[in-house]
Formats: sequence, structure tokens, C-alpha cells
Amino acid sequence: MYNAKAYSAASATSPLASSTIARRDPSGHDVQIEILFCGICHSDLHQARNEWSSMMPTAYPCVPGHEIVGRVTRVGTEVTKFKPGDLAAVGCMVDSDRTCPECQAGLEQFCSNLTLTYNFPDKHLGGVTYGGYSDSVVVDEHFVLRVPANLDLAGAAPLLCAGITTYSPMRHWGVTAGKKVGIVGLGGLGHMGVKFAKALGAHTVVFTTSPSKVDDALRLGASEVVLSRDAAQMQKHAGSFDFILDAVSADHDINSYIQLLRRDGNLTLVGAPEKPLPVSFFGLIFARRSLSGSLIGGIAETQEMLDFCGAHNITSDVEVIPIQKVNEAYERLLKADVKYRFSIDMASLKSE
Amino acid sequence: MYNAKAYSAASATSPLASSTIARRDPSGHDVQIEILFCGICHSDLHQARNEWSSMMPTAYPCVPGHEIVGRVTRVGTEVTKFKPGDLAAVGCMVDSDRTCPECQAGLEQFCSNLTLTYNFPDKHLGGVTYGGYSDSVVVDEHFVLRVPANLDLAGAAPLLCAGITTYSPMRHWGVTAGKKVGIVGLGGLGHMGVKFAKALGAHTVVFTTSPSKVDDALRLGASEVVLSRDAAQMQKHAGSFDFILDAVSADHDINSYIQLLRRDGNLTLVGAPEKPLPVSFFGLIFARRSLSGSLIGGIAETQEMLDFCGAHNITSDVEVIPIQKVNEAYERLLKADVKYRFSIDMASLKSE
Repeated sequence: MYNAKAYSAASATSPLASSTIARRDPSGHDVQIEILFCGICHSDLHQARNEWSSMMPTAYPCVPGHEIVGRVTRVGTEVTKFKPGDLAAVGCMVDSDRTCPECQAGLEQFCSNLTLTYNFPDKHLGGVTYGGYSDSVVVDEHFVLRVPANLDLAGAAPLLCAGITTYSPMRHWGVTAGKKVGIVGLGGLGHMGVKFAKALGAHTVVFTTSPSKVDDALRLGASEVVLSRDAAQMQKHAGSFDFILDAVSADHDINSYIQLLRRDGNLTLVGAPEKPLPVSFFGLIFARRSLSGSLIGGIAETQEMLDFCGAHNITSDVEVIPIQKVNEAYERLLKADVKYRFSIDMASLKSE
Repeated sequence: MYNAKAYSAASATSPLASSTIARRDPSGHDVQIEILFCGICHSDLHQARNEWSSMMPTAYPCVPGHEIVGRVTRVGTEVTKFKPGDLAAVGCMVDSDRTCPECQAGLEQFCSNLTLTYNFPDKHLGGVTYGGYSDSVVVDEHFVLRVPANLDLAGAAPLLCAGITTYSPMRHWGVTAGKKVGIVGLGGLGHMGVKFAKALGAHTVVFTTSPSKVDDALRLGASEVVLSRDAAQMQKHAGSFDFILDAVSADHDINSYIQLLRRDGNLTLVGAPEKPLPVSFFGLIFARRSLSGSLIGGIAETQEMLDFCGAHNITSDVEVIPIQKVNEAYERLLKADVKYRFSIDMASLKSE
């Protein structure tokens, strides 16, 4: 066991502040990683502020962060995939049972004995797991990813959650060259969706309520941008989409997007609105359309996504901040005031 | 052109009554069928009473009926599939453009130039198409199905709508031996769902609100019956279903069934509730579940379904009535007072 530096919340209403946490020494299959960058995901804020109290109450102190990239510093004696000096990454999961049908299928995210990267029971030290707002982390090599050397590390960090969350449903629902793909909501998730859809060869259409986002959507790779409040523009695309990725968490009219799907088209929601959304089933029935959800991705698919990013030089558009600005960043996140993800330069933690 | 006997509604508020309608003489690819039995579908009632006025307003007189079985009496000179004396059936569709991608894919039900069996513009005679509450019908052979000789004809009629509506989504979503399948709602559609799921080799679970339906569900082939208002019984099945067919048109809590699906499980709605149903997306996201709709089936699949019924000796459980009792049957339909479908013995029309 050793002491690591971290930023943690002491309660649902406390700002994040510098603190010291215990990490286990790496043994067996463990990989110790010096964290270089950690992305800020909206889930970090929800968890730090205990906004999911009914589903996943927060244990304090809470150290958020599950978009982690860094460099391997030590490895356990059984480790074969990594050696000190390697680039490495960790996403939302740090353990699972490895034996259930979900794990066997490479879909660890659906394992009922999953350990998330933060705020989950820590089997090694007791208490809960601590995330990536820290100078280091120790994780079993099965849950540690390789990072292509050509990627900018600050921009690579958000791939571990925002990236895999958008890549996985596109692969699952068959997005390939020539397909017509819609992206609803141009934020942290949506902007990754645009990059992946374009790199997969799809005709990529961004839906946005903001005329001010049109230029940026085109810059990110959109083939077209539709202002979703313009009924005539929407109607022009009726029945034409193979796949729509809906990355909007706020309440919105999902039926107007279902109508845009062609026969057998799928709309996948990754935004997780808090309240149930009313779904008109006529829209589903008349073209055998489907509506689904998706949750990050398995470890093998996360590695596939990182390798795909390496091959296509894809990273997230990030605003790099020092850890000392994390509380300010949370406030800006609530106003969607970031293009498109914050990435914490963890070197800033050394001065604490 | 010739005169045919029929039962028609003269207005949204008129009872169905005996009348005479014009049918075209069979030419080219046309098949003339003497109708022996016609099932009563809830759509017949909706259409006769103009309850879908916003979507498909009813033209009067309206002759409902799209679950038609009978015997071929005459054929056009180009007809190759049928000869006089053959058993034949007609379902919900009598024409489509045959050239669009949907038709080419054998999914005529999604053709944008579809002609439904009743209340759709009649290209041959003008006015609208007239359905199966009649002594005969003339239909292009592409839309005429063969009926296996071993099937009871009164029970075979409902296969043309209730049958294909439940068979098609099971095939599309991969119901096979060893899968666990749920059927929600034990009515005209649901009871066919039970028979198909069982014949396909699935472990078939019926959900019902009525303890009085348990015995009948088991008789129809259910492996288990769950009383859906019993939360403990429902919880026992959480996360275990590969596929659920939801045949309930009334407002109901679809989220409690979504929770019962396993990872990648699908719930298909064929009941078409009038009002949008609230869907909680957490249920979809946490196991990559999907929700979809389905609409009857294509002609090739309808023939496949009839052949499957022939091989497994499957027909609908029907109460046979004379046409003179059709108005009474509509009232009983509204109270779900039928096990499980009315089938009109069209011989009764001869005395009108």
C-alpha cells in the first residue's frame, strides 16, 4: 500500500479538493500507471454530487475520473501485456468476474460482478475504488488498454468513455461505408460520434438546435447539418437513416427522430434522460424500426476502438485544464460551455 | 364487373348490413376466390367506425375483413400459381408496386404504394377496396396464398393477420429452440404468439393480469404463466428473456417487461397503443436491450407461416359465427369476450 495524491469530494456539496488516498502495491497481474491525463465525464459530476443516490449512492471521499491515460511505472510478476514505460489507459471498469456469460462474450460492462473505476467496493483495500483524478492508479492488466503512440494523450483520454460509448453502438448496429447515420446532440459524446461515423465511411448528419454549431459540426466531419427545430428540414430526411445515435440527456422528442429511420433502422440512446420518454409505437411499427440503449463497451472492443483511433488519428477535441480548475470546469459543464471535453493535465497535481 | 354480396357499414355509426358491391372480373394475373371464412380483426372495427380518422379516414360503404380463406373459382389467363378448386387465402394486402426496395426485399407491407385489402383506393374499379365480409374477392395472384390442405379453414382464416403479425417478429428476432420467449396479453394475437413460440421450440412464458387465463395459457402451449401484477413473480424472471412479444393495445407499463429481457434481448410491440408509452431508457441501456415494432409480414413470409402451420397443424382458436352476428361480435370484441378470434362462416351470406 502506498499514498497517492488525488482530488476528491468530501461530501455531495463540497468542492473537489486535494487529498491523499491509499493505493495497493502492484502484485500478480496488476499494472501501476502514472496518470498523465484524465478526461472529465458528466458522470463524474453526477457521482461527486450524489445525484444518482437512488441507484448508486456516493461513498465519500469520492475520487471521480474514468478517462485515464498514462505511463506504466511498475508491474506485478504475472503481467505479460505491459512493461514500465508503456503508454496505458483505463476506462470505466477495473474488474469483473471473468467467468460469467457476459465476460466470456467480451461484454464485461454487463457483468453482474463488475467493479467500476470509482465508487464501487474495492476488493483489495476495502472501501471504494478511487478514480483517475489522481497521480497514479493500480489496475489488473485485463482492464488496462494499450494506447497507440501517435495519439495526442490529452485528447486520447476521453476515448476511454465518450469514445467507446459512441463507437460500440455504431459497430453493433452495423455502421459501415455508404450507410446514412445521424448524430443528435453535439457535445462530448456527440462530437465523438461524428468523428467515428465519418471514419467508418458513413454519410453523417448532425442534428442540432443551435445554428451556431453548424460550422463546427462540418469541421468535425459532418456531411450535413440539420436544424432540428426546422420541421421542413427534418421532413426532407424522413425514412432515410440506417442508424441514429442520440446523445441528448435532456428531455426531448425522440419520436421526431424515429420517423427519420428507414425500414429496420435503429436509434440508440446513449444520453440516458432521467425521466422516461414518451414513445409513439406507430413510428416503430410502420417500418420495423428499433430503439435501443448502449453502455460503454467491452474491453476487447475498447482496444479495437483505440486501435481504430490510432489508424485514423482520432482523438477528442479537448480543453486542457490543471486539476485546480476542476470545480470551475464542473460549473461550465453544466452550461455545456466546453468544446468538447475537459482533459485534466495531471502534472498539475504534483504542485499540491 | 359483377355483383357480389357483402356486409358493409354505411357510416361510422351504422351497424354492418347486407349489401351488394361491384367486383372486377378476373383477368390477367387475377384470381377469383369464393370466400369460405373470414376472421374478425380489431382493425375491422376501428375502420368500420372511422376510429382512425386522422390516419386512415374511412370511405363508406366500408366492407371490412382481411383474414380471408376460400376456394378459387376463376383465374385470369396469365395465372400460374392457382387453378379453380384450389384452396386460397388473402391477408391485409392486395397490391403493391413490386419494384421498390421494400417489395424487392419481400417486405411488401412497407411499400409506399401498398394497397390494403379494404378502404384503400381501388386501381381497377375506382372507389375503395372491399374486404372479406363478402361472398367473393378478386386479387392478383402475387397476393394470394396457398393454404395447406390439412388445416381447419375456419381456424386458418385468422392466420392471415393475427398469425403473420406474431410469426414475423419471432422469425426476425431469432426465436428458435432453447430461447426464452414471453407473450404479453392473451387475446387474438397473443394466443397465436403462444402457439408459434411453442412450435419454434422456445420456452414460452405467458404474462397475464387474469388468474382465470392461466389454465388456458397452459393448454395453448405455455411452459409457464406469470401473473403480471405479482411483483415477486415478475422479479424472478428479471434479465432472462431473449424475446418478448407485447400484444397489448391498452395503456400498460412496458418498462416492467423491458427489465425482464436479457442482454441484447428484444421486446416487439404488435399491439399499437394509441397513446405514446413512457420508456425508461436506463432499462434499455444497462443490457443493450432493444424495443421495436412489427407490422404483419411480407407475402413470402406469410406463405412460409402458412406452410409452418400446415407442418405443425396450427390454427387459431376460433368461435365460428354467421355473418348476421357480426355486429354482436363487434360488441363482444370490445369486451374481449372471445376465445380467441371470431371467424365468419361465409355460407351464411348466401341466405341474404
